[in-house]
Amino acid sequence: MEITTALLAEYIAQRKIQILRSLFGEYNIVNLAECAQALGIEDILFLLKILPKDISGALFSYFSIEKQQEVIEIFNSAQIKEILDNLFTDDITEMLSDLPANLQRKVLQAVSAETRKEINEILSYPENEAGSLMSTDFVEIKNTDTIKKAIERIKQQGKIAETVTQCYVIDDKRRLVGALALQDIMFENQKEKVADHMDSDVISVLNHTDQEEVSHTMQRYDLLVVPVVNDENCLIGIITVDDIMDVIQAEVTEDIHKMAAIRPLDDSYLKVPVMHMAMSRVPWLLFLMVSATLTGMILTRYETVLATVPALAAFVPTIMGTAGNAGQQSAVMVIRGISVDGMKFSDLFSVVSKESKISFYIAGILFLVSLCRSVFLPPNAALNIAVVVSAAIATAILFANVLGGILPLIALKLKVDPAAMAAPLITTIVDGVTLVVYFFLCTAFLGL
Amino acid sequence: MEITTALLAEYIAQRKIQILRSLFGEYNIVNLAECAQALGIEDILFLLKILPKDISGALFSYFSIEKQQEVIEIFNSAQIKEILDNLFTDDITEMLSDLPANLQRKVLQAVSAETRKEINEILSYPENEAGSLMSTDFVEIKNTDTIKKAIERIKQQGKIAETVTQCYVIDDKRRLVGALALQDIMFENQKEKVADHMDSDVISVLNHTDQEEVSHTMQRYDLLVVPVVNDENCLIGIITVDDIMDVIQAEVTEDIHKMAAIRPLDDSYLKVPVMHMAMSRVPWLLFLMVSATLTGMILTRYETVLATVPALAAFVPTIMGTAGNAGQQSAVMVIRGISVDGMKFSDLFSVVSKESKISFYIAGILFLVSLCRSVFLPPNAALNIAVVVSAAIATAILFANVLGGILPLIALKLKVDPAAMAAPLITTIVDGVTLVVYFFLCTAFLGL
Repeated sequence: MEITTALLAEYIAQRKIQILRSLFGEYNIVNLAECAQALGIEDILFLLKILPKDISGALFSYFSIEKQQEVIEIFNSAQIKEILDNLFTDDITEMLSDLPANLQRKVLQAVSAETRKEINEILSYPENEAGSLMSTDFVEIKNTDTIKKAIERIKQQGKIAETVTQCYVIDDKRRLVGALALQDIMFENQKEKVADHMDSDVISVLNHTDQEEVSHTMQRYDLLVVPVVNDENCLIGIITVDDIMDVIQAEVTEDIHKMAAIRPLDDSYLKVPVMHMAMSRVPWLLFLMVSATLTGMILTRYETVLATVPALAAFVPTIMGTAGNAGQQSAVMVIRGISVDGMKFSDLFSVVSKESKISFYIAGILFLVSLCRSVFLPPNAALNIAVVVSAAIATAILFANVLGGILPLIALKLKVDPAAMAAPLITTIVDGVTLVVYFFLCTAFLGL
Repeated sequence: MEITTALLAEYIAQRKIQILRSLFGEYNIVNLAECAQALGIEDILFLLKILPKDISGALFSYFSIEKQQEVIEIFNSAQIKEILDNLFTDDITEMLSDLPANLQRKVLQAVSAETRKEINEILSYPENEAGSLMSTDFVEIKNTDTIKKAIERIKQQGKIAETVTQCYVIDDKRRLVGALALQDIMFENQKEKVADHMDSDVISVLNHTDQEEVSHTMQRYDLLVVPVVNDENCLIGIITVDDIMDVIQAEVTEDIHKMAAIRPLDDSYLKVPVMHMAMSRVPWLLFLMVSATLTGMILTRYETVLATVPALAAFVPTIMGTAGNAGQQSAVMVIRGISVDGMKFSDLFSVVSKESKISFYIAGILFLVSLCRSVFLPPNAALNIAVVVSAAIATAILFANVLGGILPLIALKLKVDPAAMAAPLITTIVDGVTLVVYFFLCTAFLGL
């Protein structure tokens, strides 16, 4: 049977509580939440009230932030508490950070003092730090426990934990000393000590570690969960890989936006308001337009050259465009190399050497094609003009490739974001240099 | 103590087998593999021989493909088999797909007939399909089992399985009918049936599902593992989230390369050979250079206009550049919207409407700034020229934004890759249209 919004609405209208409960017990909650979300707010509140508390918690957690907000506005403290008691702390904090201040307060007042303290701690971290992503719902075992005791703890805490794939072992000062999984101990002698069976080489991250580094760590060690510790190595939370996948997507979108000279936007294209979107694009457009004054000045300076041989002007966009594209290509390769393969400033020499060699091939091929194109396609230039144009393209490619390759590394060294800096700077510099090279070649070899 | 390559080399030279074994038991294998990889091949072979088989398997799996190849070239069938017996099938197939044919054969001959059959099945899938990513090392439980029997199976199979976070339940025809985790059943009455405790609403993917869709499914349902079934819903493998993270990274890199007009490369920047890299960049550079013939022709056609008012030529790069940047911005927003938020061709109207509104603001701001810039900065144009130039910029932005927004959606509809098609086509079309608009405005309003 396919679940639809209409079907849910019908059962709700007929108050078929038993059928609804069994539907929500049986079908996948993500799909159900998508259908339920399209219901009227009255129907949604009805559902949240009649469903078992763990299911209504899960249902709520898959609603959009707008729906969550509507629900919280209407529900009273006791009702909010019931729902939040069934959410993981990272889901609560994620929701809270998107809520307006008055509703944040309403939510925080509804939860227990202990949860409030945990939530406030997580909310105190800057958005990009490990602490802000962590959940406090994990299974915690003491190193002095017997295996019997440990299994009891897993049984107790496992119901509210995000995962029991990894349980963490702490000493009497709450310092992280090991990790173990349920299957590692459940078939062992119950009287033995946890300390003898745990994996004592646990990879962890610090609460202030940048989220991008957390994602690199999890990928490097193929982790599904990573524990978060403070400066004293005390265990304070865990981060699960599903949250890290969202981080990777968000970071990548940010990088792509920056490379396209857009100030990064948080939300999806169709959701961002028009004005907000326009303002995220205007700054770099303005910068690039105004900085093009430079190319205008160079062109004005060589007005007489262009007036003497008008065909030379026809090639300006081709030369500048080709150089700009070449620079963008090498910049993107290196920017991606920095974020995926961890390229560093110390790779500068390898990059210069590699880009020089690459340019040799690219410039050679483009020189030959440009020569043919300039002579045989409009404006059917004379051979000497075609040679100058093609030589300008070849030289510009060499320059643009090397510059495009090293600028991101220099940005990294200067602790500026490589993705944000590279595109605009490369365009501006490459455009200027390309024109100067072109006119130098024109005056030198065409006797202008 | 910090583990270094030199330290390992020293212990190996002194044949301190016990110390090496305890090191490899205690420290993280990923870090150890990185150090060990830099050893000479003789030392590596020594390590693989003296370490316990499960550890040497793990060590081998973290080597680079080049090192793995070296080892396989030297090892005999029995030695290869020992290592492969301790690898998961997805690690073996990933390695195999990168090996030359003669070594592939050597590996396949070394493994057991059953493993060979499994590997060959996985290898038969195209690279981008779920089947090629799956592992056959999972825990399988029958729906008729008692909980006691199920726990026994987990105990038996759990040692060679990638994960017991999710175990899968099949019926007598091997059809996937449910899922359960160890902690769901270990505290239940041992005599009860698995069928009464399993989660019967299992999200699965088909063996021929595209890997990008697998990654969307796992993200949508927050899964750490997803089962792979064939057309008859029979369970044939599992895919774990760590492999999917690699897929996401690779797909994103591919998209970014395409947007920068580079044919996607598999390997990291520093590893790709120069010639290979050059050839991945040349095609689009050539296309863009030759297609710029169009702009050259337009410029030639209006030679007399440019000759009459030379200042007009100085603005050409600014106008074309600004329009190109604007088009790239909207294209990137929509391309990313397609891959992350699942935007579809049916969003075309929303995009046109949104981009028109956005352009209104952007064009307005840029018109005003351009007006000031043209008058007050070189070449200090006359007011009527400045108005024409700024109007051309504003019109071009409107056109470029809308075109940039709809081209990726049209590509999607035509089943062409939006990222690969958008950048080159937008540049070419926007450049041409922008120039035509500019010269139309020049002739109409400046009486040229």
